[in-house]
Amino acid sequence: MRPDDARRRLRALGFRDADAEVLAAHFLAAEERGQIGHGLSRIEWLATWDSLETTARPRRVVADGGYERWDGSGALGYLVLHEIVEAQLAAPPAHARIVVAADTFPTGMLGYWTRRLAEGGLVAALTATSPRRLPHPSGGPALAGTNPLSVAVPSSDGRPVVADVSMGSVTYGDVLTGRAQPDELVPFGGDAAHKSFALAVGLQLLVDALTPADGFGAVLVVAAPESDPVPALRRLAAVPGVRLPGDRP
Amino acid sequence: MRPDDARRRLRALGFRDADAEVLAAHFLAAEERGQIGHGLSRIEWLATWDSLETTARPRRVVADGGYERWDGSGALGYLVLHEIVEAQLAAPPAHARIVVAADTFPTGMLGYWTRRLAEGGLVAALTATSPRRLPHPSGGPALAGTNPLSVAVPSSDGRPVVADVSMGSVTYGDVLTGRAQPDELVPFGGDAAHKSFALAVGLQLLVDALTPADGFGAVLVVAAPESDPVPALRRLAAVPGVRLPGDRP
Repeated sequence: MRPDDARRRLRALGFRDADAEVLAAHFLAAEERGQIGHGLSRIEWLATWDSLETTARPRRVVADGGYERWDGSGALGYLVLHEIVEAQLAAPPAHARIVVAADTFPTGMLGYWTRRLAEGGLVAALTATSPRRLPHPSGGPALAGTNPLSVAVPSSDGRPVVADVSMGSVTYGDVLTGRAQPDELVPFGGDAAHKSFALAVGLQLLVDALTPADGFGAVLVVAAPESDPVPALRRLAAVPGVRLPGDRP
Repeated sequence: MRPDDARRRLRALGFRDADAEVLAAHFLAAEERGQIGHGLSRIEWLATWDSLETTARPRRVVADGGYERWDGSGALGYLVLHEIVEAQLAAPPAHARIVVAADTFPTGMLGYWTRRLAEGGLVAALTATSPRRLPHPSGGPALAGTNPLSVAVPSSDGRPVVADVSMGSVTYGDVLTGRAQPDELVPFGGDAAHKSFALAVGLQLLVDALTPADGFGAVLVVAAPESDPVPALRRLAAVPGVRLPGDRP
């Protein structure tokens, strides 16, 4: 698919113009960052869904200062996170806020959402669940999703640092696009895979325990920064061959 | 050091009885779980500190419903986290709360603190910073602490799941006790070490950005569960050779 075709193809699937724009912007940003598995191939993937809901709207069901709970209500997870990000930027927390998103799938490249918050001056940490695809390193059934964790921190130099780490050795998108085999989708780290497995299980249960029903979801911490640690880290890291998470090569 | 000597030795360093008890309980729990690097050897390590402050008390400087900020005020990080855990159990959040701890070091085995919260019925996610010891996987200066992340989730079966993962391939405690060499203290994961490095940097900046001054600190998310996902996961994981994070062998 050519980038120019993305919006047209999404509208053809039934999405209204504004939503097609949100989705296309996400997929194109993933392509641009080399996260191909989260990119345009996902449009063809959406086209294979048996019942693709294109008109549902997410709802904020609890808003209590330092806590919000949202429900996707059938909307695509990308669109739920978009609404959540916009709502946080429009009304940032005085100090910090925990946002729980139930019925929220798929969520795509989490760093895309946290980067938008950091570019708006907010610290963000975000995790999200997806179908169980990671087995224990010693084998057995799939017990946890790839459950990425993204942390983004704004900077007075205008360049946030954005970490975005999936617990899988490859992404499910890599499998979808044929660049990896399904059996390569295991916790990352080789001999240390028990560590990424533990993180995947912990993040899975965190999201599952904070959402009221079965299904996939996301948990976001969003906060006003109390200090500005990025510039000093950039100075320390100004060494050939060293690149901070989320920076372009 | 024999376990029986721990409390006596801590009192001899100047800690009042109640604090010696908190510290000894933590070190002995670490020994019992095989996390030797967080165990009794830390008492000898504390004895080497130039200025060990034994009488300072942590202070809660902001308490705003879904947000608290604490300051260690010179108290050992273990004692700060103990006070924070007790305060959360005494007055749990209606939904969720973010607790930021500034001037809080060392924090020990994070799963010890999150497990106590989960045993009290609360979901907990905790990270903490420590001196920069992890370089980028391609080399250069140390840029991030080993910055563990622990997630604990309570269960109606009485057995919380407790993940507790350091981003280092070995612990600094392993180095302190001579079971690892300093140059083995790198991000875990071998070929995938860029992932654990990114997590270490992200968690470092998260804590640094949420605390108002330089120094080490911790960030805790504590929440009332909306559901009970652990028993179903335990049933799924009931396969020979598979152990969930934090479970005993």
